[in-house]
Amino acid sequence: MIIVKGGVTAPKGFLASAIRAGIKKSGNPDLALLYCETPAVAAGIFTTNVFKASPVRLSITNLRNRTHRAIVVNSGNANCANGRQGDADALSMAGYIAKGMALGKKEVLVASTGIIGHRLPVRKIEMKVPELILSLTIKGSSDLAGAIMTTDTVKKEIAVKVKLGGKVVTIGGAAKGVGMIHPLMKKATKHATMIGFITTDVSISKKMLEAALSDAADESFNMISVDGDMSTNDSLFILANGLADNRSIRAKGKDYLVFLGALKFLCIAIAKMLAADGEGATKLVEINVIGAKTDRDARVIARKISTSNLLKCAIFGEDPNWGRVAASAGSAGVDFDPDKADIYMGPAKVLSGGSSMKTFDKEKVRKYIKGKKVFIKVDLGSGEGSGTAWTCDFSKEYVAINSEYST
Amino acid sequence: MIIVKGGVTAPKGFLASAIRAGIKKSGNPDLALLYCETPAVAAGIFTTNVFKASPVRLSITNLRNRTHRAIVVNSGNANCANGRQGDADALSMAGYIAKGMALGKKEVLVASTGIIGHRLPVRKIEMKVPELILSLTIKGSSDLAGAIMTTDTVKKEIAVKVKLGGKVVTIGGAAKGVGMIHPLMKKATKHATMIGFITTDVSISKKMLEAALSDAADESFNMISVDGDMSTNDSLFILANGLADNRSIRAKGKDYLVFLGALKFLCIAIAKMLAADGEGATKLVEINVIGAKTDRDARVIARKISTSNLLKCAIFGEDPNWGRVAASAGSAGVDFDPDKADIYMGPAKVLSGGSSMKTFDKEKVRKYIKGKKVFIKVDLGSGEGSGTAWTCDFSKEYVAINSEYST
Repeated sequence: MIIVKGGVTAPKGFLASAIRAGIKKSGNPDLALLYCETPAVAAGIFTTNVFKASPVRLSITNLRNRTHRAIVVNSGNANCANGRQGDADALSMAGYIAKGMALGKKEVLVASTGIIGHRLPVRKIEMKVPELILSLTIKGSSDLAGAIMTTDTVKKEIAVKVKLGGKVVTIGGAAKGVGMIHPLMKKATKHATMIGFITTDVSISKKMLEAALSDAADESFNMISVDGDMSTNDSLFILANGLADNRSIRAKGKDYLVFLGALKFLCIAIAKMLAADGEGATKLVEINVIGAKTDRDARVIARKISTSNLLKCAIFGEDPNWGRVAASAGSAGVDFDPDKADIYMGPAKVLSGGSSMKTFDKEKVRKYIKGKKVFIKVDLGSGEGSGTAWTCDFSKEYVAINSEYST
Repeated sequence: MIIVKGGVTAPKGFLASAIRAGIKKSGNPDLALLYCETPAVAAGIFTTNVFKASPVRLSITNLRNRTHRAIVVNSGNANCANGRQGDADALSMAGYIAKGMALGKKEVLVASTGIIGHRLPVRKIEMKVPELILSLTIKGSSDLAGAIMTTDTVKKEIAVKVKLGGKVVTIGGAAKGVGMIHPLMKKATKHATMIGFITTDVSISKKMLEAALSDAADESFNMISVDGDMSTNDSLFILANGLADNRSIRAKGKDYLVFLGALKFLCIAIAKMLAADGEGATKLVEINVIGAKTDRDARVIARKISTSNLLKCAIFGEDPNWGRVAASAGSAGVDFDPDKADIYMGPAKVLSGGSSMKTFDKEKVRKYIKGKKVFIKVDLGSGEGSGTAWTCDFSKEYVAINSEYST
């Protein structure tokens, strides 16, 4: 597997574009389109929030269709909590693309991110759709990655190539979301605002594509947290158009595993970009839990630690306060023997068998924690289960961003 | 029921004292003693954290004793993650009091709060115990309430009197804890650092006392959150010495309910004091959920909302961002019909039947949210279940306090 340029337009057959539709107050690009030249099978997972935005509800419905051709996405407005008007507006947004490109209405998926409870300006969108369609290009990934940004400070995109039975398969991805980030996305369920698009030219059945997306997300996007707040709009889409001409993946055999491996790599890479760019963040924090009874236990504990405001403030302050790791690990609702637990902060073991190390090199750890990446390992010493979560530190800037943001 | 002065030394038979033992770096009082002149029945609930501090483990064991006489507590050191040495040190701390006052070793309960992973300075404590015992007074509640403070800015104490079958029963309380506050305390289980003491001269069986403490805590201390972080040391004790001479409460009859009502009132009053004094807080936030299918559902949702960093930042910024209330309510893992949900911020209905109100008086809400107390109501419109949680806003000062704190 190799990393290549081109993001979501790296795989064969995909085009993208982005324009300024005047939805964002800033006047920055805020409307983007991802298009596949041939019918693609699609899968999507969505926020598990009870309050689901209208575009999420529409995409869940439209995903029942056999094939898809386009995804239209806006930033600056979540189109959430707008009742039937919101549902009608999401339908209109998809309809403009379907009409303009002569596609079936259900072949178009939609996503929105931005403020909750304000009506989506569909007239502005309608007027800009022709320009959006005319701007489609095979180099459009970067424009799309930029237009979906809200409080993000950098674009997030990546692509990889992997060989499958002699054929080269390409997978591309782009995503946004650095606040209200604690996704738990499942098939046809909930909400938070991260939005991600994955494209691939692999040939695969819709059922296997759905399975691969869920499996990959559970070890990547569903393991990141910026602030512990789940959005109403989290959406992750994958489109697969089969142009790589590989023997189509129809079951969980060897080809599926190779494809899943590449997809996981791509999803983890993007998920880490999101966590690293978390609102106000100065450091990326990786929490690896091993020695748990099951992988599920390990993931639950890793994710709990990733939401500890106290730990994240300590890391912002570059103080190796491992007591906050222990306290958080112990509060995840998962039982384990505390007297078997070890904790490592970067290069140093700081807790051994549930008891603090008196002799670790505090200066070494203090120096380590001044870096841009902080790695924390918790070994429960009770089994083979493992899991990894990613977060960022918690700064005064996070509070500034989210207290000075006005409805 | 009336509110009276005197805190934990208001009920008959209780004395308290506090001194400086040199455990806190600041040199402030850090060692306190609560003493009952006659044998009292006791109950305690503790953090449900897997990592439990040594004093928590010892108190759980000692609570198996039939009666108790004293509780000794230190601030500045949590005596947590210190292994067998920590357990031995907690035992020593209780032992000094037992020896100095000629009590049974198991008649003494212990609590600690402060930094994790540093050895408790038991020699300092041993040398100061005679002074601590000599300082006991029936006006000692305020000294005790001061000595247990860590990042607290005000003392928390209250007492109430209630009539039970013609006899006046007094209940007093004192507590600390404004950071690492998200307690979930149960009988003989977990940890976070809030520490609370309740005294009463009611005559009651140990079994009924345990039941009353759990019931009262579930609607008060177990419903507050400052930062979502559960401590390893949370402890809430109640001592009842029977000196009020009421007909002893042995079952859940009328007297039990009157006593429970007064106890709940006292616990809610103290819990709100803790939330209002949350690290860096400028406002107390009360979240009331009604119309849920069950009380449990309502409490889970209220508590989830109380941990929303985004909402708490918005309240710090005095911005009525109710979308963050909706997003958080929907992410609690409790199913409800979003199209039946209403949300109120103070005087204004902002969401009606899952759809944003276009007409509410934004200026009125903006003015309301500038006050020191913010009241949020969520009506799910689906049943009779209700619950209330308390939290505070989230300020840059919280980040400062917890990033500049050094291990």
